[in-house]
Amino acid sequence: MRVVVLAGGTGGTKLAHGFAQLPDVELAVVANVGDDAEFHGLLVCPDIDALLYTLSGLIDAERGWGVAGDTHTAHDMFARFGEETWFTVGDADLATHAYRTRLLREGASLTDATAAMAAALGISARILPASDERWRTRIRTDAGELAFQDWFVRLRTEPAAIGVSHDGPGIAAPAALEAVANADLVVIGPSNPIVSIGPILALAGMATAVAARPVIAVSPIIAGEALKGPAARMMESLGHGSGAVAVARYYHALDAGLVDRFVLDEADAALAPDIADLGMAPAVLPTIMRTDADRATLARTLVGSDP
Amino acid sequence: MRVVVLAGGTGGTKLAHGFAQLPDVELAVVANVGDDAEFHGLLVCPDIDALLYTLSGLIDAERGWGVAGDTHTAHDMFARFGEETWFTVGDADLATHAYRTRLLREGASLTDATAAMAAALGISARILPASDERWRTRIRTDAGELAFQDWFVRLRTEPAAIGVSHDGPGIAAPAALEAVANADLVVIGPSNPIVSIGPILALAGMATAVAARPVIAVSPIIAGEALKGPAARMMESLGHGSGAVAVARYYHALDAGLVDRFVLDEADAALAPDIADLGMAPAVLPTIMRTDADRATLARTLVGSDP
Repeated sequence: MRVVVLAGGTGGTKLAHGFAQLPDVELAVVANVGDDAEFHGLLVCPDIDALLYTLSGLIDAERGWGVAGDTHTAHDMFARFGEETWFTVGDADLATHAYRTRLLREGASLTDATAAMAAALGISARILPASDERWRTRIRTDAGELAFQDWFVRLRTEPAAIGVSHDGPGIAAPAALEAVANADLVVIGPSNPIVSIGPILALAGMATAVAARPVIAVSPIIAGEALKGPAARMMESLGHGSGAVAVARYYHALDAGLVDRFVLDEADAALAPDIADLGMAPAVLPTIMRTDADRATLARTLVGSDP
Repeated sequence: MRVVVLAGGTGGTKLAHGFAQLPDVELAVVANVGDDAEFHGLLVCPDIDALLYTLSGLIDAERGWGVAGDTHTAHDMFARFGEETWFTVGDADLATHAYRTRLLREGASLTDATAAMAAALGISARILPASDERWRTRIRTDAGELAFQDWFVRLRTEPAAIGVSHDGPGIAAPAALEAVANADLVVIGPSNPIVSIGPILALAGMATAVAARPVIAVSPIIAGEALKGPAARMMESLGHGSGAVAVARYYHALDAGLVDRFVLDEADAALAPDIADLGMAPAVLPTIMRTDADRATLARTLVGSDP
């Protein structure tokens, strides 16, 4: 069974890891590139890296990002040179960024570079950048428009987001689009709808391609809160409302036929009728993934379910 | 007093550090760039880095290169990605290479980038790359022609050097040439004559500019051996003969008027007449620099001496 997971931050990556544990699933993960940025002259792709590290088992599971046991010697040296260091790059991370940047400078597409990196790390799932082109999320705030990492890391999401846009040609990577077109099931992971999933679906042809397949979306918002990250606060400051239903409504607004089944956490069972009102089949499941087994269990349930 | 030291490897760098300790010396070090190479898509300048680390006090004094206390987490990650790792890049080193590469990609000359790095590390001496252009040493051997680091590090200098050439336009950096032209004294450091000093003097106009100033050369060969590195073996395999006199003869062959005074170690006092026969004033001094104080003492003696 060919499953495509759309993933951005922690939640989507964990769920992708769940599918990667299922032997009968041929997994492709379409990764958000809207968070990408250059630091120290190197291309940093936080969402792709989280997938590379998680699916290879290198991830620092406690933090949810970076490589376990990573050191920060280069970071200290960058500080000596007077470089901006608000975006912490671990030493292993720096190797990742340097290697990727070299492959790109030598002419590889981001899709090819990511495939080479995944293969080197022994990952059998395909990790597919949503776009091979620059496609950067920008956040409008009362303090001006900011590059995503500038807002997310440097300013710790403090100025409320009042608008989100994407900078770039908006061309989906051919491999990502093809994987979606050939998927038996597309899973929209429990990632931030606006800055993780939104940038993927905003690429030309992507929302249409997704909508044409059976689609399950998993809410990243549980009992009104995101497990991690600014999703809940962003949904509100951008006028999308609050709670898991706001997520379903957000996807419904993008394309009324996009999502077939919408997964609510057990804590939100009472919201099922509101989901049904949007024309999506509600499914109530335990969605909090504390262990690797939790991830596989949720993935197995979704594969077994009929979207 | 304006002193310019021509420096490549360990010996020249140590002597430059000696001059940097003298308060009445305005020091500029012209650094060999023939050893430069790209690793992981980043420009590595081993001789400039040795100067940056030595003059800032960051150097791993025991090894004579790299940053004290450096870690190798990135190196291990590069290995995971299947990158060639025969050239060990420490994590702090990697920051150095990334920072330099970024400055160059943004349009800085190597001279400007090096000045920014030296300033950031609190170095008051000027470190001047001999050339702002690519000027790479290549070693001809029975096993073919090799890039310098390929021969020096990967093959550990094993195939004997039977020829040396330089690849690039051969243009001296304007700042380096100007520093030489304005020097009260030029010191040819006890670095490898062929691959550290030779590439500097081979740049258009450089040997002439050096020859026009008072010049002291310090032999890197003591009692027939180099303290470190392949200088003695290279001199022989390239047909320049052996011992400290071969070094003097090598410089004499480049330009008979290049060196005014040639410093022999005390162990080679008996060679003084041979130096005098070449038209250079021999000076016999303790040249082994075990401590920072040794470096300053030798530098002070050279400044006090009349070339």
